[in-house]
Amino acid sequence: MVIVMERGADAAQVRTVIEEIERAGFRAFVNPGVERKVIALLGAMDVQKAQLADHFAALPGVERVSRISEPYKLVARASQPEGTRIQIGRVCIGGPALTIIAGPCSAEDREQALEIAQIVKYAGANMLRGGAFKPRTSPYSFQGLGEKGLEILAQAKEETGLPLVTEVMEVDEVELVAKYADMLQIGARNMQNFRLLQRVGGIDMPVLLKRGPGCRVRDLLMAAEYIMVEGNHQIALCERGITTFEDSTRYTLDISAIPVIKRHSHLPVIIDPSHCAGEWRYVNPLAMAGVAAGADGLLVEVHPDPASALSDGPQALKPERFRALVADVARLANVLGRTLSSPKET
Amino acid sequence: MVIVMERGADAAQVRTVIEEIERAGFRAFVNPGVERKVIALLGAMDVQKAQLADHFAALPGVERVSRISEPYKLVARASQPEGTRIQIGRVCIGGPALTIIAGPCSAEDREQALEIAQIVKYAGANMLRGGAFKPRTSPYSFQGLGEKGLEILAQAKEETGLPLVTEVMEVDEVELVAKYADMLQIGARNMQNFRLLQRVGGIDMPVLLKRGPGCRVRDLLMAAEYIMVEGNHQIALCERGITTFEDSTRYTLDISAIPVIKRHSHLPVIIDPSHCAGEWRYVNPLAMAGVAAGADGLLVEVHPDPASALSDGPQALKPERFRALVADVARLANVLGRTLSSPKET
Amino acid sequence: MVIVMERGADAAQVRTVIEEIERAGFRAFVNPGVERKVIALLGAMDVQKAQLADHFAALPGVERVSRISEPYKLVARASQPEGTRIQIGRVCIGGPALTIIAGPCSAEDREQALEIAQIVKYAGANMLRGGAFKPRTSPYSFQGLGEKGLEILAQAKEETGLPLVTEVMEVDEVELVAKYADMLQIGARNMQNFRLLQRVGGIDMPVLLKRGPGCRVRDLLMAAEYIMVEGNHQIALCERGITTFEDSTRYTLDISAIPVIKRHSHLPVIIDPSHCAGEWRYVNPLAMAGVAAGADGLLVEVHPDPASALSDGPQALKPERFRALVADVARLANVLGRTLSSPKET
Amino acid sequence: MVIVMERGADAAQVRTVIEEIERAGFRAFVNPGVERKVIALLGAMDVQKAQLADHFAALPGVERVSRISEPYKLVARASQPEGTRIQIGRVCIGGPALTIIAGPCSAEDREQALEIAQIVKYAGANMLRGGAFKPRTSPYSFQGLGEKGLEILAQAKEETGLPLVTEVMEVDEVELVAKYADMLQIGARNMQNFRLLQRVGGIDMPVLLKRGPGCRVRDLLMAAEYIMVEGNHQIALCERGITTFEDSTRYTLDISAIPVIKRHSHLPVIIDPSHCAGEWRYVNPLAMAGVAAGADGLLVEVHPDPASALSDGPQALKPERFRALVADVARLANVLGRTLSSPKET
Repeated sequence: MVIVMERGADAAQVRTVIEEIERAGFRAFVNPGVERKVIALLGAMDVQKAQLADHFAALPGVERVSRISEPYKLVARASQPEGTRIQIGRVCIGGPALTIIAGPCSAEDREQALEIAQIVKYAGANMLRGGAFKPRTSPYSFQGLGEKGLEILAQAKEETGLPLVTEVMEVDEVELVAKYADMLQIGARNMQNFRLLQRVGGIDMPVLLKRGPGCRVRDLLMAAEYIMVEGNHQIALCERGITTFEDSTRYTLDISAIPVIKRHSHLPVIIDPSHCAGEWRYVNPLAMAGVAAGADGLLVEVHPDPASALSDGPQALKPERFRALVADVARLANVLGRTLSSPKET
Repeated sequence: MVIVMERGADAAQVRTVIEEIERAGFRAFVNPGVERKVIALLGAMDVQKAQLADHFAALPGVERVSRISEPYKLVARASQPEGTRIQIGRVCIGGPALTIIAGPCSAEDREQALEIAQIVKYAGANMLRGGAFKPRTSPYSFQGLGEKGLEILAQAKEETGLPLVTEVMEVDEVELVAKYADMLQIGARNMQNFRLLQRVGGIDMPVLLKRGPGCRVRDLLMAAEYIMVEGNHQIALCERGITTFEDSTRYTLDISAIPVIKRHSHLPVIIDPSHCAGEWRYVNPLAMAGVAAGADGLLVEVHPDPASALSDGPQALKPERFRALVADVARLANVLGRTLSSPKET
Repeated sequence: MVIVMERGADAAQVRTVIEEIERAGFRAFVNPGVERKVIALLGAMDVQKAQLADHFAALPGVERVSRISEPYKLVARASQPEGTRIQIGRVCIGGPALTIIAGPCSAEDREQALEIAQIVKYAGANMLRGGAFKPRTSPYSFQGLGEKGLEILAQAKEETGLPLVTEVMEVDEVELVAKYADMLQIGARNMQNFRLLQRVGGIDMPVLLKRGPGCRVRDLLMAAEYIMVEGNHQIALCERGITTFEDSTRYTLDISAIPVIKRHSHLPVIIDPSHCAGEWRYVNPLAMAGVAAGADGLLVEVHPDPASALSDGPQALKPERFRALVADVARLANVLGRTLSSPKET
Repeated sequence: MVIVMERGADAAQVRTVIEEIERAGFRAFVNPGVERKVIALLGAMDVQKAQLADHFAALPGVERVSRISEPYKLVARASQPEGTRIQIGRVCIGGPALTIIAGPCSAEDREQALEIAQIVKYAGANMLRGGAFKPRTSPYSFQGLGEKGLEILAQAKEETGLPLVTEVMEVDEVELVAKYADMLQIGARNMQNFRLLQRVGGIDMPVLLKRGPGCRVRDLLMAAEYIMVEGNHQIALCERGITTFEDSTRYTLDISAIPVIKRHSHLPVIIDPSHCAGEWRYVNPLAMAGVAAGADGLLVEVHPDPASALSDGPQALKPERFRALVADVARLANVLGRTLSSPKET
């Protein structure tokens, strides 16, 4: 931590900062600058003490505090340099094989869900997605089928053998959703619902944590830290687009987030090209870009009849387009030294 | 709703759109354009049917759908043209009097909370703020005192007579927090925690709904609609800064949100200059700007010793600076035809 | 400057950084951290040497470089703590009096320009604005009358006695525009047209430098530094909105930029509420907010018949609305200890 | 064009809008809505008339105007559905072969420039980049060698046979730069320097137009339209990152811009992964993502000794890393049905 004093800071203010540094158990080193003093805080800093930054920043005469260490620990690459792998049945997220998670935006009825599940399985998906509890911007939109939807999805999972990832929106519903799911999704709007993070941190089931559209990569890592601190280390991060001024797509896919996360963390990264695109026609190029940039998998919405979908139809791929995408990704994976091990082959 | 077809859309695709429009109970009018067809959907559109936009957008040959009506109803200015007023004891949010809500970021201990409450009361605040449950970006940061904090804040409220607004983070805690509070705050990170919105929509207590830093004004209004749909119409909206590329302040206060909300909705608007600034020195000018732009009140953090604050010290105003701010705002209110009725005067 | 080494940086890499620091004439101090080394660069740093940051950042084993000093010098508050005042005839930008610059978006014909000039003068404006060379997003839009427009504006200036600010778009046109104008405007899209900045830096005429919508405050200050380095110190900065995800206004007025600039620089700040609003109905609240936050003046578009304006009609104020705005600002100025000295009173 | 009236608009206001529509040569159709009137403007709309939107928006009682047609014509995909190909010597930008443009950020001295040119040629680049006139944020940074730099770059081009792209910053310098270059670069900060666009529109040399970091794709297309209107149709667009709140990379590469541009325009797209990354370590994944998403080429900075580079060293690839990148891109191109025809092979 480096503490930059204001230009006009006086000797007493500098002295106070030094005393506070020493009171916190560190040593202080004052940079002999002429225009303004810079005080380095020396000694090992753990994540608890990193929270002292605000304390120093609020001392009189301090202009700003510059942190050196990352504010997270468990999610940091250094804590597990070889990278996390999450095993879910025969699927392994984070290894050389890419994970293709596909399915409808929401489970609408039994027939639809079972049909799509078979479609994505035979197209090459290795996990099934689908929502039973849907967070929707409008209270007048379809909100999902609730537990009924979970039952349908569980049947689809049984019939196909594909592990299921589905969203949980509420602390109280974690137990219920976990009865049916193989992986719990925390939606983008709940990325900083800290109670929910803590709750899924306390159970033994993998978590797919989606990035909030207004949140920095750093905040996404801190949200994952909330889960890990509670004991659950099976987390995959999902980039699904951020809010920017560009309005030709619904969100702007932050493709750089993939190498940035890979550098700073050991957690696997999944790309959701459907939600950021908002239109099916951009899903293929964004999915390809994500894999080429190093993503460990894709989360894709598929629907046999997008116009009749009860949510997010315009971004859903028709079955034939999804099959083409899987074929494209398979060729790409090959070039990148990765594979696309579909369960039907095993 | 206006449906713009792709350039190459054929007659069958146009026919399908028309049939779908009619199936939904509307009339279709096809614009005789030469380059591309534009189909207007005629007839009264309610908020439920506005959800059909995605359906039309996903039909083959459709380029995009342009909505004409707002997707909300209860929050719309038209549904209550004279503007909502929320009465909380002697305080009225939304009338000619400005509401100054002030207090510590979080209740840290009894003595501190009572001291600050007295300070802000005598400086001219008419409501007390303070957190017992604190949503923090880092799991290693101080998370609030929980119910103990609520008890302390309730005592501060009792001793000063100032109504209390405090945050609720969880569906399960709504009842608990409501026992102590006079107004429930939904924090920025929970603005789209729809379950929490529905829960506070079901109780009879005013709500302060903070805008998520990555959310559009339109999304904030939809979040308020979630609460109103459940029956609770006592909502004040709070602008507290959005995420942008500018990094000289923590968030960018979207000052335009004030007149934009006033135009489209009847709900009162409160400005939080502390969180967007991130530094005490910008709080006064941002507060003044907010009031000048038409805000109905301010939410300000005050701390007698910011460097010892357990959260957000750098943005807290010292008592003398808060007193100066209230004096400035009082003069400004006078010019704007508004008042600043402090409880001590009544 | 503080140089943070990567976790795995070896002794040789640290040694190289130290040698490079010493070769540049500074002393190095290595922070005895356990996880990663941090090397402080000690000694007085001027703006030329601040450019060395990239050099150090590119050395092997360096993770990042954190600058302590600002990268600008002449625009810095420290170089002229009392604040710059620009005298243009009887108008003084930057003193206690607010400057109201008003007029049409562009000069369309003689009659229109003269009419608006009289209107804004009698409403209380103390400077005249108007474009002869118009930068337009579309090549098919009206591009201004060119020199003919300058002649018309010069006549309007003569008849009213109001000094004229008008935009110059091109290095080659600086001389021409300067023949007619009293202050040269650099438009938002040219904020980083460095050749143009250098050219207006070489003449003796005040400059109104508008912030680019995608540029940080820091970049705006660096653009002003470009002008000052060439000798021209008469610069007023203009905030006119930045690009963000919020689309209810054309741009998001960065109201915080006012106190941020005031803290870091001595240059006066003008607010343009017309361009960021994009709609006349938001101009008044944004103008009031700007003045309340500490701006030194306003730049407002006025048109007697907005629907017939050849550019930006929707954001132009009608004469009666402009008169109401001036009256509101005058009352506000009074409260803030400022004045609004219209030339007609002197 | 669709004109949405305010809720309270009266019959006279509706009538005026209809008259204005007819005066402009169109027919009006009034949507029989109950809450608010919507007036469709019927008839073929050309780009000149599209500029009428502001006129209608400023009429009394109008809430907003929604455009149906794109505001550009020459850059639109429809005007050349098969896609533009730009032939520069043996290089063809926009065809099946990917174009790899590489070189130093700026020409620093003869020896360096010639060395890098040979390195990039033998690594597989098919065009040479390098700056002689450098737009720099700080006036204290290295500004390029000017004409001397052009001479050096011309020699590098001669020795390698690689066509040269280099930036032109000023209307007056277009002729000079065109003497040495094979393709003129318009830098991101000059994307809306309309005079410069018009000037390069008037010469017979391909243009590489970089997107401004605060500009929408739509604005980039309009900037290209400025060039095409003057007669020069040989334009490649370059995505190089936009300003967002995410600060882990210098800019956020808008990867979606590639399919969005491909859909709406026939112009080829080049990706610059170096400037958006700001760090060499992110260049490879971003380049791969760009190609996978459908880009027609890459613009990459290479330097044998990044720490001694006079500009942007941290983002420059060392020769061995550039060679690895070209090998990766070649494998990727193969999978995508594209080639990477290096000049050395021909």
